[in-house]
Amino acid sequence: FQRREYYVQREVLDEIRLDEVAEKETCSTEPSLTERVKESLRCSVPRVKQTVLNWVPVLGWLPHYSIRENAIGDLIAGCSVGIMHLPQGMAYALLASLRPVFGLYTSLYPVLVYFIFGTSRHISLGTFAVISIMIGSVTERLAPDSNFIVNGTNGTESVDIDERDARRVQIACTLTVLTGIFQFLLGVVRFGFVVTYLSEPLVRGYTTGSACHVSISQLKYVFGVKTARYAGPLSLIYTLVDICRLLPQTKVPELVVSLVAISVLIVVKEINDCYKQKLPLPIPIELIVIIGATIITHFCGLTSKYNIDVVGEIPSGLKAPRAPDVTLFSHVIGDAFAVAIVGYAINISLGKTFALKHGYKVDSNQELVALGLSNTIGGFFQCYSVTSSLSRSLIQESTGGKTQVAGVISSVIVLITVLKIGALFEDLPKAVLSTIVFVNLKGMYKQVLDVPMLWRTNKVDLLVWLVTFTSTILLNLDLGLAVSVAFSMLTFIFRTQLPRYSVLGHVPGTDLYLDTDSYKQIPGIKIFRSSATIYYTNAEMYLEALQEKSGIELGKLLTAKKKKDAKLKRQQEKEKKKAKKLEKGQGNGVALHGKETSTHHLSKGQVNWAYQQDTAMFDSDTECHNGIQNIYEDIEENEKACVSGTHSIILDMSTTSFVDTVAVKTLKNIFRDFGEIDMDIYLAGCQACVVEQLETADFFSKNIPKTRLFVTVHDAVLHILKQKGQSLPLVNRLTFNILID
Amino acid sequence: FQRREYYVQREVLDEIRLDEVAEKETCSTEPSLTERVKESLRCSVPRVKQTVLNWVPVLGWLPHYSIRENAIGDLIAGCSVGIMHLPQGMAYALLASLRPVFGLYTSLYPVLVYFIFGTSRHISLGTFAVISIMIGSVTERLAPDSNFIVNGTNGTESVDIDERDARRVQIACTLTVLTGIFQFLLGVVRFGFVVTYLSEPLVRGYTTGSACHVSISQLKYVFGVKTARYAGPLSLIYTLVDICRLLPQTKVPELVVSLVAISVLIVVKEINDCYKQKLPLPIPIELIVIIGATIITHFCGLTSKYNIDVVGEIPSGLKAPRAPDVTLFSHVIGDAFAVAIVGYAINISLGKTFALKHGYKVDSNQELVALGLSNTIGGFFQCYSVTSSLSRSLIQESTGGKTQVAGVISSVIVLITVLKIGALFEDLPKAVLSTIVFVNLKGMYKQVLDVPMLWRTNKVDLLVWLVTFTSTILLNLDLGLAVSVAFSMLTFIFRTQLPRYSVLGHVPGTDLYLDTDSYKQIPGIKIFRSSATIYYTNAEMYLEALQEKSGIELGKLLTAKKKKDAKLKRQQEKEKKKAKKLEKGQGNGVALHGKETSTHHLSKGQVNWAYQQDTAMFDSDTECHNGIQNIYEDIEENEKACVSGTHSIILDMSTTSFVDTVAVKTLKNIFRDFGEIDMDIYLAGCQACVVEQLETADFFSKNIPKTRLFVTVHDAVLHILKQKGQSLPLVNRLTFNILID
Repeated sequence: FQRREYYVQREVLDEIRLDEVAEKETCSTEPSLTERVKESLRCSVPRVKQTVLNWVPVLGWLPHYSIRENAIGDLIAGCSVGIMHLPQGMAYALLASLRPVFGLYTSLYPVLVYFIFGTSRHISLGTFAVISIMIGSVTERLAPDSNFIVNGTNGTESVDIDERDARRVQIACTLTVLTGIFQFLLGVVRFGFVVTYLSEPLVRGYTTGSACHVSISQLKYVFGVKTARYAGPLSLIYTLVDICRLLPQTKVPELVVSLVAISVLIVVKEINDCYKQKLPLPIPIELIVIIGATIITHFCGLTSKYNIDVVGEIPSGLKAPRAPDVTLFSHVIGDAFAVAIVGYAINISLGKTFALKHGYKVDSNQELVALGLSNTIGGFFQCYSVTSSLSRSLIQESTGGKTQVAGVISSVIVLITVLKIGALFEDLPKAVLSTIVFVNLKGMYKQVLDVPMLWRTNKVDLLVWLVTFTSTILLNLDLGLAVSVAFSMLTFIFRTQLPRYSVLGHVPGTDLYLDTDSYKQIPGIKIFRSSATIYYTNAEMYLEALQEKSGIELGKLLTAKKKKDAKLKRQQEKEKKKAKKLEKGQGNGVALHGKETSTHHLSKGQVNWAYQQDTAMFDSDTECHNGIQNIYEDIEENEKACVSGTHSIILDMSTTSFVDTVAVKTLKNIFRDFGEIDMDIYLAGCQACVVEQLETADFFSKNIPKTRLFVTVHDAVLHILKQKGQSLPLVNRLTFNILID
Repeated sequence: FQRREYYVQREVLDEIRLDEVAEKETCSTEPSLTERVKESLRCSVPRVKQTVLNWVPVLGWLPHYSIRENAIGDLIAGCSVGIMHLPQGMAYALLASLRPVFGLYTSLYPVLVYFIFGTSRHISLGTFAVISIMIGSVTERLAPDSNFIVNGTNGTESVDIDERDARRVQIACTLTVLTGIFQFLLGVVRFGFVVTYLSEPLVRGYTTGSACHVSISQLKYVFGVKTARYAGPLSLIYTLVDICRLLPQTKVPELVVSLVAISVLIVVKEINDCYKQKLPLPIPIELIVIIGATIITHFCGLTSKYNIDVVGEIPSGLKAPRAPDVTLFSHVIGDAFAVAIVGYAINISLGKTFALKHGYKVDSNQELVALGLSNTIGGFFQCYSVTSSLSRSLIQESTGGKTQVAGVISSVIVLITVLKIGALFEDLPKAVLSTIVFVNLKGMYKQVLDVPMLWRTNKVDLLVWLVTFTSTILLNLDLGLAVSVAFSMLTFIFRTQLPRYSVLGHVPGTDLYLDTDSYKQIPGIKIFRSSATIYYTNAEMYLEALQEKSGIELGKLLTAKKKKDAKLKRQQEKEKKKAKKLEKGQGNGVALHGKETSTHHLSKGQVNWAYQQDTAMFDSDTECHNGIQNIYEDIEENEKACVSGTHSIILDMSTTSFVDTVAVKTLKNIFRDFGEIDMDIYLAGCQACVVEQLETADFFSKNIPKTRLFVTVHDAVLHILKQKGQSLPLVNRLTFNILID
């Protein structure tokens, strides 16, 4: 019994502090000044070296690059990824409403920058559908066709496409530079954690919603119709309605080209999937399709015969870097932030997956810096925002890529294409590029299967998924993301705001107290627990639930107590008057009579055993014992309100992870109000950090002594029972302990 | 020892379910159809009655109104409050940029509506400084002076004050109706809990910020200067700058009037405070001041002599109700929501305080309905938004008010004033009304003392206070509130996102495990705990902290394991080949040699005891035991990564209040990855609701059996030690238990 009788928590806390002090003392063995200077000089060189290695990781691993082990794998992987870059780069550039060649640039420069600063060895940076459509929504918003209408020679109005595209490139590059700056700054201030706000259901809902945006933006190429362009909320719906309206004007040749291309792509991709293990490299079907489509279009003259929309002029060679248009920054700041966060989220989740698989570390903040620099520098070279793509990264890893060198090799392939081969793709139909986009969305559409899965496993996360999906569809990609993140946070608040409250019962023969009614409560003791931490949104409910679950109606009891006190006072005054009168009239002897009355009624008062005992034990002011009369009704009221004669309440605080001022105030009020109706409150199972916070908040005082704090519920129960002179009912094995101790 | 060997959690859960089923069965004793119809008929009448009483509480308490007990108290309280209504109503109407008489209307109608629907007996509805200034910011934004400039007869431009004021009344009433509709709807859908998002530091910071807005808006009357009016963010700063610029033009007479009035008010209010107990009623100094000021101004002709700005025409009599301007709804929707929430927050906090003090219940949703109806109906009668004011409610309670009847009596007094006396106040200087506003802000300014108090007790809540205060000052009352609520929620997310992680040590002689290094860890077992619930923002960090704190580097170990497996395979293949060769060459007898080699090396492998033992126990595939050669380096690597030979990890989940999909996935990954390096994971201390959620989320499977779940950490420890054939080291008293059991 004794071993439970100390307040371990307090001792532990004191010990911690003593230990910390001791540790500090042993650590600082007071070196002399000269020694310190020497030490700092000796230390500074490797420290600087380490810092440089952290910021420029390539210096760390490239000198140790083992050509024998890695070169062949990197070469094959680089070539495979390079070949994938070509069709994807061109197709995604269309998504961003840019000319295909800018997609190729995007597959080129940022990869080289990432080679120097990146820490993940397997991800393939470059164009990505979701980011591309986000860029596209900005370019179309800030440079719509309507801004570039010129009067043709024959009086009709036409769009000055060259000027429009030049403006769009400028907008995309500006946005990219700003995105890069955001990412770089977030990385420098070590804010990589922001990405944790994008929970998995949110990201999956968001990418599925983005896939819808991507698909609908590509439909016009498939059907060969010209839709009006919409911006702002609900633009997706307007566009879809527009396409449906224009369906009768479908250009059949373009539709045929699309259908042929898409069937070939799907069939061969399925073959790739099935024979994954047997094929040394997957068939580069996308490249084959665009080469085939270009050749057919060119030599069969489809452009002139059927007026099929083709990619058009692809300039050979590279362009000189150009500064972004700083005046646009204020127009794209929101989009830039969304692109920065989404790009980084996709990047880091892929990077971490591969890192865990291959047993190396990815530094999330350095990744943010690397991605930021890739975007900032890329933005100067007419690239748009990059992130890693799942499809390319998987190919890079599965074909044997070992290090970032594979990325450099893929860049070389893209570079060769841009310099020499690019111009050959001028006759490539845009519809074929659209089909490549469609086929690559397969994985994202598959995420719709999350819905039944989440319905079974977690309804709240399903709600997050659906809200994210809906808001992305309706409010577009930037505002939709903001709404989703806010909603996702709100679900967490809701979940902690509506915890499950329970009164714990004792499991016979153990020191366990579980939240079920199948175990008996210890008479007179209520053990109360909230399933979540107490903080400002649920503090009030905690108090209400405590009253409801424990069956103690605080308000009624307080009023009853007040009435009783008032009556007592009146009674006392009456008696005083009486006594005075009697003293005057009869002298002594009658005071004794008064005393007798009071003792008589006190024994009657003991009907309500626990309550009276409490009063007797804790109400040190003696007025209670004198002259209690006519309090039967009060006792009845008390009994009604306080059914089981509860005398002690233990608040199990084991689920509390921190306390704010509202929680402290609520606890203080519980101690004060229940104290007034002579009930003892105990706290059990506080974590050490919670106790520290309670101390800082001046929680403990004369009225709430630290002796009310117990390490476990069982400690508190044993303490209370000992004080009441009882032993634990329902004990069988535990009695042995007590007897022996 | 045995008593710990069952998995209580599982049993408990089963029992809960059985109980629930049993309960349902006993409850539904299957009454026949006719019985049910009868029952429902018999029940429906009292049910309807109860519903009506809930929605119209006055029907519940008025018939039982005890004139003997309550009438005198209510009469005195009603008169006191009515007298307070007059100066406050007129003064606050100025804040709302309305004519004083509308403040009187506001003190009249809503109180009557609240009498019917309200559940709090002591609060005094009516005008309130914060709400008034919120209304004022809207009226001035939507109906600025500049909209009503007319060309005077002599060519100068002047403001058409009558038309402007009429428009402002319309705006204020429309806003009020919309506010009321919001409150009513929130009450009907039982959304009273939204007010919990306004935590105490937030409300106090907000009201202090509002007090600054109120003061600065009143300065112009005190100094008698005419400032330009600003709207939108930073308007407070602009106004302040403007006033400072105009200070040289101060009208000295108005300043003198203000200073005299304010000194009288402060002195008498202090006297009221000091002699609170001795005075039967507080001196109605505000009323005295306005009466005195009016008389002096009128009879000394101050208006004509010194051109003092006075209240002006006060129409006698009531006005017919008028419908709000529905077209304005879209312009004021945000403000209306802010007013609705702030008004309700102030109302309910006061109501609950008095309810607790006097032992009755305030229904928070019914309060919302009552306030909503008061505002909606009031809006039709040219009132602006109401809430309860602390100063008036305190007077109502302290002068003996017992029920809502006091409110009706105060309304009668206001009504008499409006009908008969109002017109007498036409010569009241506006500066005097301003000083009444100033003096009533004292309590709010005192809240600045929260800052040092919060600095000592809770820095996070201090941050909430400061951010709320600053954003209210800079972004005005609507946007500032939104920012504050969002920030307040974010602090909660931050706090749970960065929990304290700890490895627990065993307190000798007990079954306690505490988060301190001063207790020894049990060799081979790591007990890990996060101070907060695991959810999407901290799930990744949980995994990282687990690796860091337990000193187990998962990545390295996994790579080492893979290498080892690969080597083992190669080895096996070699041996097979060898064996084949030997079989071919020499026949039998050598296979035995090969076996000998393997056993030899297995004994060497036992250097890393725990790791090997685990492999032997849990890796059921026997390939591990065959042909282990040249694995010394792997063992070394393992030893480096897994310092103390840990074989089991217990995750103490007692702080977890719910699990989302991200948490489930993280836990699954922990089981999978640590399982791969042959480490056992156990969960301990899950709450019943968490176990339920884990079950729904398909957490338990063949790889993660439910037997890994223990009620307490101690159970898990004992189970592990028993499996390993060890007993708890450091046991002294506990050994007795075990021996006896």
